[in-house]
Amino acid sequence: MTTLAEFETLCGKVRNWGRWGADDQRGTLNLIDRASLRRGLAAVETGEALSLSMPLQLKGPQDGSGIPGRINPVRTMLGINTPMGPDPAAAYSDDIVVMPLQAATHWDALSHVSWRGRMYHDVAADAVSVAGAARLAIDTFGPVVTRGILLDVARLEGADRLPGGFEVTAAHLDACARDAGIEVRPGDIALVRTGHIQLFHAGDIHGYHTPTPGLGIDTAAWFHEHGVAAAATDTIAFELLPARCPELVLPLHVLCLVMMGMPQGQNFDFEELSRACAADGRYTFLFEATPLPFRCGTGGPINPVAVR
Amino acid sequence: MTTLAEFETLCGKVRNWGRWGADDQRGTLNLIDRASLRRGLAAVETGEALSLSMPLQLKGPQDGSGIPGRINPVRTMLGINTPMGPDPAAAYSDDIVVMPLQAATHWDALSHVSWRGRMYHDVAADAVSVAGAARLAIDTFGPVVTRGILLDVARLEGADRLPGGFEVTAAHLDACARDAGIEVRPGDIALVRTGHIQLFHAGDIHGYHTPTPGLGIDTAAWFHEHGVAAAATDTIAFELLPARCPELVLPLHVLCLVMMGMPQGQNFDFEELSRACAADGRYTFLFEATPLPFRCGTGGPINPVAVR
Amino acid sequence: MTTLAEFETLCGKVRNWGRWGADDQRGTLNLIDRASLRRGLAAVETGEALSLSMPLQLKGPQDGSGIPGRINPVRTMLGINTPMGPDPAAAYSDDIVVMPLQAATHWDALSHVSWRGRMYHDVAADAVSVAGAARLAIDTFGPVVTRGILLDVARLEGADRLPGGFEVTAAHLDACARDAGIEVRPGDIALVRTGHIQLFHAGDIHGYHTPTPGLGIDTAAWFHEHGVAAAATDTIAFELLPARCPELVLPLHVLCLVMMGMPQGQNFDFEELSRACAADGRYTFLFEATPLPFRCGTGGPINPVAVR
Amino acid sequence: MTTLAEFETLCGKVRNWGRWGADDQRGTLNLIDRASLRRGLAAVETGEALSLSMPLQLKGPQDGSGIPGRINPVRTMLGINTPMGPDPAAAYSDDIVVMPLQAATHWDALSHVSWRGRMYHDVAADAVSVAGAARLAIDTFGPVVTRGILLDVARLEGADRLPGGFEVTAAHLDACARDAGIEVRPGDIALVRTGHIQLFHAGDIHGYHTPTPGLGIDTAAWFHEHGVAAAATDTIAFELLPARCPELVLPLHVLCLVMMGMPQGQNFDFEELSRACAADGRYTFLFEATPLPFRCGTGGPINPVAVR
Repeated sequence: MTTLAEFETLCGKVRNWGRWGADDQRGTLNLIDRASLRRGLAAVETGEALSLSMPLQLKGPQDGSGIPGRINPVRTMLGINTPMGPDPAAAYSDDIVVMPLQAATHWDALSHVSWRGRMYHDVAADAVSVAGAARLAIDTFGPVVTRGILLDVARLEGADRLPGGFEVTAAHLDACARDAGIEVRPGDIALVRTGHIQLFHAGDIHGYHTPTPGLGIDTAAWFHEHGVAAAATDTIAFELLPARCPELVLPLHVLCLVMMGMPQGQNFDFEELSRACAADGRYTFLFEATPLPFRCGTGGPINPVAVR
Repeated sequence: MTTLAEFETLCGKVRNWGRWGADDQRGTLNLIDRASLRRGLAAVETGEALSLSMPLQLKGPQDGSGIPGRINPVRTMLGINTPMGPDPAAAYSDDIVVMPLQAATHWDALSHVSWRGRMYHDVAADAVSVAGAARLAIDTFGPVVTRGILLDVARLEGADRLPGGFEVTAAHLDACARDAGIEVRPGDIALVRTGHIQLFHAGDIHGYHTPTPGLGIDTAAWFHEHGVAAAATDTIAFELLPARCPELVLPLHVLCLVMMGMPQGQNFDFEELSRACAADGRYTFLFEATPLPFRCGTGGPINPVAVR
Repeated sequence: MTTLAEFETLCGKVRNWGRWGADDQRGTLNLIDRASLRRGLAAVETGEALSLSMPLQLKGPQDGSGIPGRINPVRTMLGINTPMGPDPAAAYSDDIVVMPLQAATHWDALSHVSWRGRMYHDVAADAVSVAGAARLAIDTFGPVVTRGILLDVARLEGADRLPGGFEVTAAHLDACARDAGIEVRPGDIALVRTGHIQLFHAGDIHGYHTPTPGLGIDTAAWFHEHGVAAAATDTIAFELLPARCPELVLPLHVLCLVMMGMPQGQNFDFEELSRACAADGRYTFLFEATPLPFRCGTGGPINPVAVR
Repeated sequence: MTTLAEFETLCGKVRNWGRWGADDQRGTLNLIDRASLRRGLAAVETGEALSLSMPLQLKGPQDGSGIPGRINPVRTMLGINTPMGPDPAAAYSDDIVVMPLQAATHWDALSHVSWRGRMYHDVAADAVSVAGAARLAIDTFGPVVTRGILLDVARLEGADRLPGGFEVTAAHLDACARDAGIEVRPGDIALVRTGHIQLFHAGDIHGYHTPTPGLGIDTAAWFHEHGVAAAATDTIAFELLPARCPELVLPLHVLCLVMMGMPQGQNFDFEELSRACAADGRYTFLFEATPLPFRCGTGGPINPVAVR
């Protein structure tokens, strides 16, 4: 268990406010540089490209028990073989969707969370209004392309999937990296696999929601020390749920998004990637996950890709 | 002007039905292979990554004059610094959007268009129903990562932007490739710049819509011969609008999507890329544009990235 | 149990096709006339006006187990005390909603159901397309104002609410009318109370869905013989669910909507009305339930009102 | 022209705060009583019922030039003759809509406008949040049934329609009532016709928006003195646009909604009603316009009905 005082100490330890200049909105994404991209390019061997996204569909993970209004995508048709002109020979089909930006696989923007009225970089929380995020919005990310590394904690533990309530610690991340022969470097993006998404695949939406395995509070410092540019998991909440911090529902959200300015990814699917990495022992790859550039959005749907 | 008979002849010339097996749904994306990806990786020098997307916002290009119901994205908030738990110190913001899948920068899925009741690969048009595309949907694309090439026709013509009604021909594409020193190879993705998006940037939505410069009908054969995996333009309709084919509104859509099975990209923004390529004379790059995997979707929003 | 043959016989018995002229789209709503309205006006004594609608909210009856895409209303804000002009003294708030037309209290339009490819009045089912109902749409209803009668079957049975699976028969309707001293006349609208909505009020959405008490198949002939202009219940499906007709999921829907052209109302709330009627023994009233005039809509949300 | 000081004086003159008790949320709707309803019932002679609503459709009055995000209704299909069960003989069609609550014919809720941080009855403006209106929401209206009166200013002026910029004054309302032989009484609802909606019918959306004829600032006192329960016009803004008050965009909104607590109706269509009233000289009727009960909504769509 982590007390509020301990949490506050951690906040101070990982805080990046001011690190990248007065106008910074990109946080640890600033760590992505030519070197980290080069590492990503150099990691490609077979050229295999894998999508790490959930499908976008009505049967997604949003069963109504989470954030009010976070529904699954409702996609309907604007045209179904509708004639393009007077001659019906040529026809078009077209669709429209209603969807929360964080319904399925997505990045949290840095404006997604505030703590005591402040967001990352000491931006006032009221920069988010009915019009969305005037600062720290998802469209400030720009291209997200760098080296990705898979930290397969389920595999480390010899489990198909980690059980609900399993706390992934900095020690686990170290062990995964060591076993995979990876030296984690600034600008890398860390993909932390728990296998928990198997419950979603099996149709157990309730089980997928909670309790979940997930990142524990000490991983914030680990990400900080290694200069990780962003991190993602195959769970709905990124971090351990319920958290081991009596006074906070999602302490790691505050540490990562508000203090470090580090984007979090949720609902990633690492199952196929895990099998591929295990098969040839290569756990690094070129990783691309540029969000749709919603003006003022506090999150962004993605279809992340690992190129091996 | 192209007659219907000439058009039908062209259809036969570029048709790829059956080329990639009985169950194929990916068309020319099958041409992306290890070699094309390698070319893309090899093209990276500076590591500069550029987004080629329009922003997603209420002030987009859909002014209601196009396909009925194709509105601009309406993004609203589900939470605005809403307390996460009993203690309001930690708070979240969250949003939801209504948007056509083809509202801004996107790929057309192969199910987007039918011709005489058939889609690509002779799939019956009624595979698209109220439930969407049971075949040839956007989620069959998978990762789209390969070499991209910029064919900067506006620059070739010495124009800031090509005027409305300017037909881009195969000869223009050849000239662009030659001038840039590019040998177009199977699996490349061709980005054809007209500069027309400048009208959108200037707020002239009506002018952006029509008339547009765009790809002429003979470019289909050019794409076919060079094994281009997909093509995209910086206009709303991809092809010349109005087309020079009295009996067809969008003939190139039929040729590319239905006959070749070649994805088309629209509303790409090549302005920054054009400047970068012109500055150092390098017109090839690693290109990534994996669509959000909407189940049964007939199109998919993307944030395409060029890594130079 | 009703066999398919018996069902087909019933169809022939209640069919109104052609009864109101070649171009009719309003079915039994044609029975509303000056006399029925007069009866409604004459029934008003105390002037008490009661709403019979469910609230429209995220916590509605659509839990995802019904028709795919029938979600609960998601209402979000377009403005929250947003300044109207340069001076922020005057400010506006404004909202937008995503909602199925049949999410809560509503009328089914006559185009909602087809049987063997035909709708009411022998209109071809394909009059409903991606653009909606070209014929028999909800906006053809026009004003719905006439005498309403409450047939309180739960009260007749001495029950707070009828249990799931309870079939309301023509005999029950006769008994309710007799006990209430009502002579049912052409143009009346019949409100049939089961009390089942109490499960919704208690938060038991699943129980509210199925099994339900509801109108049995023989009530179609009763409505037909009495010239009822429309009928409504306080359940999600109007009719008994599951139905006692092995080959049909919703046989009464076919009889009422397709054969008779009689609008059905669902998810009405009669609890307060029932108490008021029981208190003074008056079961007739002026009834108003004009749907929002959605062009081409197959259903229409309403806030029905009884004026006593 | 009205100065800010004059406006403030008017505010004090018409203010109803506290008039109907400490918990009041219904403002002047409280004036609807048995007597006003009786007047409405007594006004019915022929039994003719007329809808006063615009159709709800994609081609509505919201062209994007007004409040950001106020789009026209986008209605799409969830089912198109989709089989109900294993046997496809019975099939359903179903639809879903995205629409602003104030897109077409509607009531403004009392929470729609605030003035210097306060809403009607001194409720703090921050009762409206991302969750909507915790107080003064549209679902507090309940049934709206009373006597309606048509004040046909266009007819008074001998015009088909009043020109843009025409200010309807208290004197006009008096003259209309006098000519029609109406004694305006507490609880009546006033429908003020300008004929301006003819521009909408003619497809001139821009002209429909602005400039409009409309209610001038002195009508607030007129409504107040006569105890009008609500008022509506056949324009988009209810009041004169642009207003003659240099410092305020919509001064009558503040007077009616915030000070008086009087609901305003917009985009009503009085054309058919005007012809009917002129034909037999009867300008009073039973009026019903109960909004859909959106929880926390700041406005509500309606299909108002006049029964003559």
